[in-house]
Amino acid sequence: MNSKMIFKVQGYILLIIAMGMIAPLLISIFSNETDILPFFISLATTVLSGYLLTRIKITNKQIRTKDGLAIVTLGWIFASLFGALPFYISGSIPSFVDAFFETVSGFTTTGATIITDIEVLPKGILFWRSFTHWIGGMGILVVAVAVLPMLGSGGFHVFKAESPGPIADKIVPRIKDTAKILYTSYIIITLAEFILLLFGGMTPFESIVHTFGTLGTGGFSTRNGSIGAFNSSYIYIIISIFMILSGANFSLYYDLYKGKWREVIKNSELRLYLGILAFSVIAITIDMNFHLYHDWFDSFRHSLFQSSSIMTTTGYTTFDYDQWTTFSKGILFMLMFVGGSAGSTGGSIKVIRILILAKLIKRELTKILHPRAIVSVKLGGKSIAENTLLNISSFFMLYILIFVFGSLLISLEGIGFMGSMSAVAATLGNIGPGFDFVGPTHTYADFSILSKLLLSFLMLLGDWNFSQYSLF
Amino acid sequence: MNSKMIFKVQGYILLIIAMGMIAPLLISIFSNETDILPFFISLATTVLSGYLLTRIKITNKQIRTKDGLAIVTLGWIFASLFGALPFYISGSIPSFVDAFFETVSGFTTTGATIITDIEVLPKGILFWRSFTHWIGGMGILVVAVAVLPMLGSGGFHVFKAESPGPIADKIVPRIKDTAKILYTSYIIITLAEFILLLFGGMTPFESIVHTFGTLGTGGFSTRNGSIGAFNSSYIYIIISIFMILSGANFSLYYDLYKGKWREVIKNSELRLYLGILAFSVIAITIDMNFHLYHDWFDSFRHSLFQSSSIMTTTGYTTFDYDQWTTFSKGILFMLMFVGGSAGSTGGSIKVIRILILAKLIKRELTKILHPRAIVSVKLGGKSIAENTLLNISSFFMLYILIFVFGSLLISLEGIGFMGSMSAVAATLGNIGPGFDFVGPTHTYADFSILSKLLLSFLMLLGDWNFSQYSLF
Repeated sequence: MNSKMIFKVQGYILLIIAMGMIAPLLISIFSNETDILPFFISLATTVLSGYLLTRIKITNKQIRTKDGLAIVTLGWIFASLFGALPFYISGSIPSFVDAFFETVSGFTTTGATIITDIEVLPKGILFWRSFTHWIGGMGILVVAVAVLPMLGSGGFHVFKAESPGPIADKIVPRIKDTAKILYTSYIIITLAEFILLLFGGMTPFESIVHTFGTLGTGGFSTRNGSIGAFNSSYIYIIISIFMILSGANFSLYYDLYKGKWREVIKNSELRLYLGILAFSVIAITIDMNFHLYHDWFDSFRHSLFQSSSIMTTTGYTTFDYDQWTTFSKGILFMLMFVGGSAGSTGGSIKVIRILILAKLIKRELTKILHPRAIVSVKLGGKSIAENTLLNISSFFMLYILIFVFGSLLISLEGIGFMGSMSAVAATLGNIGPGFDFVGPTHTYADFSILSKLLLSFLMLLGDWNFSQYSLF
Repeated sequence: MNSKMIFKVQGYILLIIAMGMIAPLLISIFSNETDILPFFISLATTVLSGYLLTRIKITNKQIRTKDGLAIVTLGWIFASLFGALPFYISGSIPSFVDAFFETVSGFTTTGATIITDIEVLPKGILFWRSFTHWIGGMGILVVAVAVLPMLGSGGFHVFKAESPGPIADKIVPRIKDTAKILYTSYIIITLAEFILLLFGGMTPFESIVHTFGTLGTGGFSTRNGSIGAFNSSYIYIIISIFMILSGANFSLYYDLYKGKWREVIKNSELRLYLGILAFSVIAITIDMNFHLYHDWFDSFRHSLFQSSSIMTTTGYTTFDYDQWTTFSKGILFMLMFVGGSAGSTGGSIKVIRILILAKLIKRELTKILHPRAIVSVKLGGKSIAENTLLNISSFFMLYILIFVFGSLLISLEGIGFMGSMSAVAATLGNIGPGFDFVGPTHTYADFSILSKLLLSFLMLLGDWNFSQYSLF
């Protein structure tokens, strides 16, 4: 292990985190709230620690896979430990474990919260909380791009471990260009949502906070009632649209910009992504119209919002969906395991893997009747290697395994099945709210310290997304 | 499709079913109950239909994979349709769909019931109900052996589709011998349990009924309270032991008989089977001692019984485990997806597949750190082909997929999450009771006709066990 290099890179990561703290510090100064000093202390601590780490003298520039993994893993933990300082020092979150949980939840774009009353928090804190979503949203992708030049070729491993989905192979030859495309799209879409939310009657502060939460598919809000507190169909639909945009592959926006309409329309992951979403929206709209809302438009807006929110792993809510029927809740629960597209900010298993696995199952079923037929699984006209298929299958099974054992451990809290299972599904998939004990009207505050640490670990694991384990 | 041959074989299957009806007919004559005539009519109808089908003239002796699959699939349906006659004609089960459900549940060794009061039923009916478990227990294996000579080489396909687990390849060269070994063990173990239960104070009738239910890993009882009604630690433990024996690979008994102790002890599937069971028994014993029973022996006997019963997919109960903690219930729920060993009468995913998939996941995880290492997955010293690994992975994923969509459909009944999910897990895995709406104190009586048909289909699918789809 090249530990000197690993820790030096942590220094750069901390400097970026510190830069991120400047905006909330300014906000707290201008809104003249109580969190100015805490932000100043946090920023100073982070800058100093970061600076000291970057002073490490490198003797060996070589970076191996192991080192790349260590950089990324430690990077998330360092970012969360220092990112938690403003919450802890300001007293907004009195327990450090809670502050750590909240920050992990932010950077991993989960949006699970341990804060029972958000509305009393100072603006700087609320801004920082959502800003972690936005920073985390594109993962350490941005960090990786900034850090890459210092790493030389070894930086590839960082990128490989952090690119949001199994698309690295395509990107490798022009890694910096692609990263630039990804975050340019990211910034343009951010601005668009910000402006559109202003039109909906949100204050600039609320607009920016919710835009951060949407783009990063995070889910932190300024209101205890989440998006439902605004009770505006315009806002519901705008945020639904931007959640869906954030859950799609960002490289498609570049293709659109280049005028490659046909390729975008033919993209099989996009089709499946929208197909699953459409199926869910329609099924829930019909079910809920008859069982709860008795109004087609009302059913549609909540169905569209919750389906998009859960599938893209955002976690905003417009309604306490725990009141829905088991069928509609079941669809949401299923969507928790689908997630966003590759190259998006969404987490969970991801549509591309679901697509490939569905094709694999189809092929294996065909073999029952035609045992000697040799058919390869194809994606976009290209055959997928058999060992890649095994790799993705293993990813899926490992995901289910972690979900099962995680749920068993969480059930030791003495809560019900749905609370335990959805808490694990919602953290591992970086979603946020689940059902029952962690439903839309609840928080993660009541878990024990051990469970909070376990769930933090699951959020990190989910965001880390085993990506390096399933690239092709 | 060679439909003449397919239907001719159905005739032989019906004749075997009719033979099976002779025993309950005799019992109803000797106990002088009301079901003599209904049994006589059922038997006559089945014999006549079977005879007429066997009269079909065969012009083409060739049997293809398709035909083999059709024989097996139709075989279960024919057996269940005619096997349902005694229940329906005697009026014990007034609805034919219910009678069909109960018979499918019997032959597939599921043990899910729609009868709310078993104790009022005549003895012949109760005997027949459990006898279907025993007949189904070794699958159509016995049928296949009886039918094989008439099929010539094509019979292999029937066997391939029906052997209980991925072991056919080993067996093929000496297919008849192995079948003989399997059912000899089956009969010897049946006699042993029958005698031991007599010692426990059961009547001969109760002993034989529960022995059938145990050996077939079925779960039909003579009492509404299942095994718990006997309230005897001796009976609990005897049945636990025989459930565990019935969930192990029967070919191991032959190895034991041949004195191959070492090979049996080294058998990795057996080790995992007993390991998972031991883990579950210990975890539940500790959990339940502190949370419910406050008595180590009481906790142990219920934990041993329920863990064995659910894991081997039998479904007998000694206690309303719906009162257990989420953690203990969670372990049972997990066991529902493990099932018995290959070459046993147990259903569900089966231990051998879990074992192979665990090894696959381990290998893929190793690849993260050593991307270039080429390691094959081994079982008993032999490498498993990569396409076999893909096949087993697909089986697992398809199983989960059917579970998820099945649960969604069942949830349309308007019942809760656990009721929907466990009803599907318990039928697809051929277990019987689940949780909540289908918990130990409930039956499947309250489902709609559509759901009963769906659940019957899942039982057939589970028992059919995609075997031909996952052989190696």
